[in-house]
Amino acid sequence: MTDPKPAASLVKARLPRGLADRGADEIAAMDAMLAAIKRNYELYGFEAVETPAMEYTDALGKFLPDQDRPNEGVFSFQDDDEQWLSLRYDLTAPLARHFAEHYESLPKPYRSYRGGTVFRNEKPGPGRFRQFLQFDADTIGSASPAADAELCMMAADTLEKLGIARGDYCIKVNNRKILDGVMEAIGLGAAEDAGRRLVVLRAIDKLDRLGPEGVRFLLGPGRKDESGDFTKGAGLDAAAIDKVLAFTDARRSTNAQTLEALEAIVSSSARGLEGVAELRVLDELAKAAGYNESRVSLDPSVVRGLEYYTGPVFEADLSLEARDDKGQPIRFGSVGGGGRYDGLVARFRGEDVPATGFSIGVSRLYAALKAIDSPLVARQPHNGPVVVLVMDRDRIANYQALVGRLRDAGIRAELYLGSSGMKPQMKYADRRKSPCVVIQGSNERERGEVQLKDLIEGAQAAAAIASNEEWKAARPAQISVSEDNMVAAVREILDRHGL
Amino acid sequence: MTDPKPAASLVKARLPRGLADRGADEIAAMDAMLAAIKRNYELYGFEAVETPAMEYTDALGKFLPDQDRPNEGVFSFQDDDEQWLSLRYDLTAPLARHFAEHYESLPKPYRSYRGGTVFRNEKPGPGRFRQFLQFDADTIGSASPAADAELCMMAADTLEKLGIARGDYCIKVNNRKILDGVMEAIGLGAAEDAGRRLVVLRAIDKLDRLGPEGVRFLLGPGRKDESGDFTKGAGLDAAAIDKVLAFTDARRSTNAQTLEALEAIVSSSARGLEGVAELRVLDELAKAAGYNESRVSLDPSVVRGLEYYTGPVFEADLSLEARDDKGQPIRFGSVGGGGRYDGLVARFRGEDVPATGFSIGVSRLYAALKAIDSPLVARQPHNGPVVVLVMDRDRIANYQALVGRLRDAGIRAELYLGSSGMKPQMKYADRRKSPCVVIQGSNERERGEVQLKDLIEGAQAAAAIASNEEWKAARPAQISVSEDNMVAAVREILDRHGL
Repeated sequence: MTDPKPAASLVKARLPRGLADRGADEIAAMDAMLAAIKRNYELYGFEAVETPAMEYTDALGKFLPDQDRPNEGVFSFQDDDEQWLSLRYDLTAPLARHFAEHYESLPKPYRSYRGGTVFRNEKPGPGRFRQFLQFDADTIGSASPAADAELCMMAADTLEKLGIARGDYCIKVNNRKILDGVMEAIGLGAAEDAGRRLVVLRAIDKLDRLGPEGVRFLLGPGRKDESGDFTKGAGLDAAAIDKVLAFTDARRSTNAQTLEALEAIVSSSARGLEGVAELRVLDELAKAAGYNESRVSLDPSVVRGLEYYTGPVFEADLSLEARDDKGQPIRFGSVGGGGRYDGLVARFRGEDVPATGFSIGVSRLYAALKAIDSPLVARQPHNGPVVVLVMDRDRIANYQALVGRLRDAGIRAELYLGSSGMKPQMKYADRRKSPCVVIQGSNERERGEVQLKDLIEGAQAAAAIASNEEWKAARPAQISVSEDNMVAAVREILDRHGL
Repeated sequence: MTDPKPAASLVKARLPRGLADRGADEIAAMDAMLAAIKRNYELYGFEAVETPAMEYTDALGKFLPDQDRPNEGVFSFQDDDEQWLSLRYDLTAPLARHFAEHYESLPKPYRSYRGGTVFRNEKPGPGRFRQFLQFDADTIGSASPAADAELCMMAADTLEKLGIARGDYCIKVNNRKILDGVMEAIGLGAAEDAGRRLVVLRAIDKLDRLGPEGVRFLLGPGRKDESGDFTKGAGLDAAAIDKVLAFTDARRSTNAQTLEALEAIVSSSARGLEGVAELRVLDELAKAAGYNESRVSLDPSVVRGLEYYTGPVFEADLSLEARDDKGQPIRFGSVGGGGRYDGLVARFRGEDVPATGFSIGVSRLYAALKAIDSPLVARQPHNGPVVVLVMDRDRIANYQALVGRLRDAGIRAELYLGSSGMKPQMKYADRRKSPCVVIQGSNERERGEVQLKDLIEGAQAAAAIASNEEWKAARPAQISVSEDNMVAAVREILDRHGL
């Protein structure tokens, strides 16, 4: 394995599409963001729980919008018992399994939160990954609309605590029962129409991307996209399509007016009216808690793509405007969503268990926070370790002792471990964003001294000094101290820069 | 989906073997442990980086001890381009890919750390999972033995910072080059013997579990285990087996004596002697930094199972004694390991890049910390939210307002969202480890008051009170306060219990 390999047999170092590495700055910023989300979820009384990345395929079920694609959107494989396992595609299906498995021992209602990576075997695209982070909160075992209302309010609070200003976001709410009422009205209410209902659902879910005209094709004969791919339509007639689109377009300027419009649309369906009533209660609870309509708003165009929702559905939308590096406006749209999924636990227990949840799309929300320069995710300059340079390679133990002193004092520090000379070592320290280097040649060692170079001040001074000669004469930001004073002097430099 | 299902079509709620859910206590304890590890790795100057859970199969390579089993120890699947992807089986192979892919932009040496789940498609067993957490630190681009020595010392420091006492752990060090020397001595030095060398390596790696007598069979004709499964042996003759076992048994009472013994064993092999020389330097550096032989010790029986190591190999062993729930002694053994893998980046770049790393087996270390009651992972009693009970179901908005006041004051609180009566609500609060509940019936509401019940004090009082009647008369730990004083009174209760 240690023999040099001919170029032909080399493996190309690359990641599959839709996957990404993360560097230190992004990890630190995202950790700060996740900690803030977690604090807020805990403030609401949710308790942490975690499930593994893989489950039995049948336990997860198949509720993805793209389940008709090859491999059905999910990464699956057989274990050594020939049983099928899948990587989780969301955090809700595994939670339903966890709840059903530990039904007896869990408190009910069971209120939990969890962050974790999920995996989709889908065509990756800009902002569309095959592995991404979700952060969910769920209340299982409560049929109360207060549970749904709470999730909407918590979503609003979370966004504000992350630095999204009031007015720059909106929690949009709809109810699948109203959609069911619309289905009845267009003659798709029977059990055997489940397949076509799904096609209608998915067509509506694409409103944001395709607009009503594109969705009209998907509700009718089907649609050919720019690449020439044809998506089969729901085959509705013109009148039915108009009814569906009228439903999605029923948002009015106040929630009360929207409720009225919806009531008129599903007036003939008991289930539809039940959905309207649930929406009304949710609206009242949110208002009573001080969440006005700019924060929690009824919007019939929101249906959510996942098949398992049975009642209220929510979506957290960002309306804030930001510009990318090229000055182009960016719209962030949905950064999270959720809803009620009363039937998901029933797959295991044979009886419906009321449940509702909200999921944050962490990567998308993170991108938005970066775009608005939220202080929470702002990058800290100069956060590397102090680097002790190596001038005499046969004195490693001495240099290591200097590093040890710094670490014992709680100062992040490292020995330069490469084999290069002085200049590349300084360049290395710069790349590591080191605030300060420690230098000891044989002269200094004989005198029991070290040189400290303040790299932050040095960089500022360098910008001000014109010539190389002047630089060498001044040696700005460099001081000599005794070995015994090294720790105190380094700490002074760190303090000076607020590190 | 909302129809009740017949029992026959129900999905069984269960996890595949070798996978586990984690509850709130374990998550909090493990997070505290990971934070402590991370702080120490950063103190040493390592910088965070993360790679995704899956990679192209060829980029990961196959270096697992069990690669001869079905599916070769790795979970693999094809993506929609028919290319093979695999879940990572460790954090080192993906790091090599990351380093090779971003070679130009990364500082060199590249010092990074990362925690993450890894996956092994292996037979699960007690303490042997198919998904588990590792926490690694690596220095890529340094051939210096100081880089290896540093990892051993950092491993020792990390264990001590986690509460493992000096004397209860040992970082054991060996060198694969010495093993190469032994291979030469028994006539397995040629390129075409790579397969048999691997069998020898894996046999030695089982010393801990099988003892020298079991390993003797694996080095010779093969071994049948208790279940009757036969593992093919390396087919060495008796003299060769003796040589290999003499090597693994060459640990003496001091590192200096061990080095002497090893030198004698590989005296005819230049590569073997190179390994001994490297071990000597590592030993000197550790001693110079104040790490004596009880902390960093040379032990030729340590070889590590992964194929890719090329020089020093390390293992962090716990020698502390603990007892399980039944009073049986538990031996923890290895909680981490690592070594030098100079050839791993070469798979991408065509030239060896010196690299060394150390990996902590988080779950096993966590189990050890639990067993010795390390304060770091000790479970906090009563860490649930304040629960506002619901006495009048049509007054939800009022109760929600009370919850809102508590949350606005930063107190974790929740509304009871179930549909049960008073007694189950109290039971729910107990299960959530709630420190205190807020009660408001219609009488209290008319007076603008709430009842607060201190559940911690209440539990203590209940233990002391003999009869139900006495209890009802005393109503211990329950007070009436005005709504406006609720927040202050709740905070007083929390403060009283140090929450």
